[in-house]
Amino acid sequence: MSIRPVYFVSDGTGITAETIGNSLLTQFGDQAFECQRLSFIDSLERARQIAATIRADGESRGVQPIVINTIVDGEMTRELAASGALVLDVFEPFLERLEQALGQRRQPRVGRAHAMVDPEAYERRMEATNFALTHDDGVDLDYDEADVLLVGVSRSGKTPTCLYLALHHSLRAANYPLTPDDLDADRLPEKLRRHRRKLFGLTIDPSRLQKIREERKPGSRYATLEVCKREVAIAEAMFHREQIPVLSTTHTSIEEIASKIVARIGLRRPSYF
Amino acid sequence: MSIRPVYFVSDGTGITAETIGNSLLTQFGDQAFECQRLSFIDSLERARQIAATIRADGESRGVQPIVINTIVDGEMTRELAASGALVLDVFEPFLERLEQALGQRRQPRVGRAHAMVDPEAYERRMEATNFALTHDDGVDLDYDEADVLLVGVSRSGKTPTCLYLALHHSLRAANYPLTPDDLDADRLPEKLRRHRRKLFGLTIDPSRLQKIREERKPGSRYATLEVCKREVAIAEAMFHREQIPVLSTTHTSIEEIASKIVARIGLRRPSYF
Repeated sequence: MSIRPVYFVSDGTGITAETIGNSLLTQFGDQAFECQRLSFIDSLERARQIAATIRADGESRGVQPIVINTIVDGEMTRELAASGALVLDVFEPFLERLEQALGQRRQPRVGRAHAMVDPEAYERRMEATNFALTHDDGVDLDYDEADVLLVGVSRSGKTPTCLYLALHHSLRAANYPLTPDDLDADRLPEKLRRHRRKLFGLTIDPSRLQKIREERKPGSRYATLEVCKREVAIAEAMFHREQIPVLSTTHTSIEEIASKIVARIGLRRPSYF
Repeated sequence: MSIRPVYFVSDGTGITAETIGNSLLTQFGDQAFECQRLSFIDSLERARQIAATIRADGESRGVQPIVINTIVDGEMTRELAASGALVLDVFEPFLERLEQALGQRRQPRVGRAHAMVDPEAYERRMEATNFALTHDDGVDLDYDEADVLLVGVSRSGKTPTCLYLALHHSLRAANYPLTPDDLDADRLPEKLRRHRRKLFGLTIDPSRLQKIREERKPGSRYATLEVCKREVAIAEAMFHREQIPVLSTTHTSIEEIASKIVARIGLRRPSYF
């Protein structure tokens, strides 16, 4: 079967086109796709150029390309028809129904969805990101200003999750690594007790953890399956005893973990994707 | 005008629903919306519950809610009609045309778009994120393994951009801060010369930079407009002289900056949104 080219075409970043495109393609899992994003297509000339490129790609492969399009301008979008591709216009099916429901015509604005529309909200996002960076694995830190506090053994996935929560949900996400001392003491560290309602426990399958630690510190005791099993067991028992909600990172992406945390804390401020 | 409630409803994270929903809503900028994500709606009972919640919300506000839906299951989706909302089904308009073009029925799989479908690819993403963290503002580092190397004065936006490139494009993004010594020498630091093709210069409006630095180190010489102006001028002249592509972070979001970098390096590996 020939590989089918898929183009995410946009007058902005192309993130919306790629997001919905990927979601659609996951529903056709048996097919082989080669995806490419064409962003900032902002003139008739560029639209014509890419239509020609896409046509040539389809012809050389002998298969009809797919275009997932979020260009707002009708004239530019019409140029894409010359590509011979199956062009799926992401917004088109919804705009008329929205116009009717809202009693207003849409204002075609180019590439606004991922632009810096609200500088103050953007500052909060960047500030949250800095917070996550400076409150990463820091045992001597103060968590009063944190919105969320992730707890878990070393390499359970706390740091990327915190960064994601900050970048996409403007959450001040801190993390606390359970140290060998904490695990030996087998009780929730004193400094975390004051922040119970912010706590989320991360856990991970010990054999997966062992693999991750082995890559980081090959041959160390820290990376043995025995130590991984013991640490995870103590941490999980602690979370259970202290009624801290637990999320496993073994088969769960940071997007999913973050979504679960956000759902749990009932966040109502805007997110950024 | 009453605030109209908008619900992003999904059997997975809800990221796809929220992404396209936000893109649609930005085209109706005069309206007031209150958005909420309802993720992991994975049973008929939950679907019925949220339909009732949404209906009650619309009735108490006296305005028809909007539902942006990515639930794959038809029966669950039909339950949403009881909400009385304008229900926009994100995938529905495209699936039949895709089925025809691909000669295959879709396989309705729940919540796959942001799940950990390919563990190896996921590892690369996490590994890139660790790389970005360990190659942040590190003057003594080696950049041989970097895919991208961002250069700029302190607080020009290098770190969040690197983290975004790593988390969403699996790029090993390092950053190099131009130090006062580098700026006095007024030449591209020796250790960067070997990596010319990886270099991107970040710049920023001096008065915006001044504001950011002032928040970080109030009253410092570092945060004066004079120092900010001088540093930015030297850096921009250096980028120009050395033919390093320059991106300004003043009015440009990290999504946009990252998209421009990715377009420039012609990345063909998958991205994650």
